Amino acid sequence: MKGKLTEEEIVSGLEKLQGWSREADGKWIVKKYRFSDYLAGIAFVERAARIAELELNHHPMISIDYKLVTLRLTSWHAGGLTALDFEAAARFDEVWNG
Amino acid sequence: MKGKLTEEEIVSGLEKLQGWSREADGKWIVKKYRFSDYLAGIAFVERAARIAELELNHHPMISIDYKLVTLRLTSWHAGGLTALDFEAAARFDEVWNG
Repeated sequence: MKGKLTEEEIVSGLEKLQGWSREADGKWIVKKYRFSDYLAGIAFVERAARIAELELNHHPMISIDYKLVTLRLTSWHAGGLTALDFEAAARFDEVWNG
Repeated sequence: MKGKLTEEEIVSGLEKLQGWSREADGKWIVKKYRFSDYLAGIAFVERAARIAELELNHHPMISIDYKLVTLRLTSWHAGGLTALDFEAAARFDEVWNG
């Protein structure tokens, strides 16, 4: 489950998600979440970070540009994307969907 | 107080802070805060964000790369750095120092 995914697996994984795309070099998946309230975005970050630390042990790169929160995922140990990145993406979307 | 600072004022402002520096284009000041615990970094972000929203009405760009939290400040309306950026930097350091 923790090996680097094939191209086919990545394409298939992205089809099952909404709003996630690959970054240019192909080693990351990224999603931008927009909030109408700044502190709602911060609360989302806090919840996603707890899940990253306590459930997944897998941490997204997070950037907060006012009401726009960007999450980026990769698996350093594998040098690319693994099943864990897609599992994490789905979990963060669950948090976002409330 | 909200006008763009002169070079001299920026140099003087940076001398009064610890760990803040200018980014290459000179329009931003930046500091990287390192934490020994991931969720401690997230708690810092949460506290800094509340101050940004509720006290300062001035929001840093925030990036979270595991236990490394980076804050970047600029004043869009002034096209550069203003006194508010330095006030915000000092407040975030207060939060960080506990």
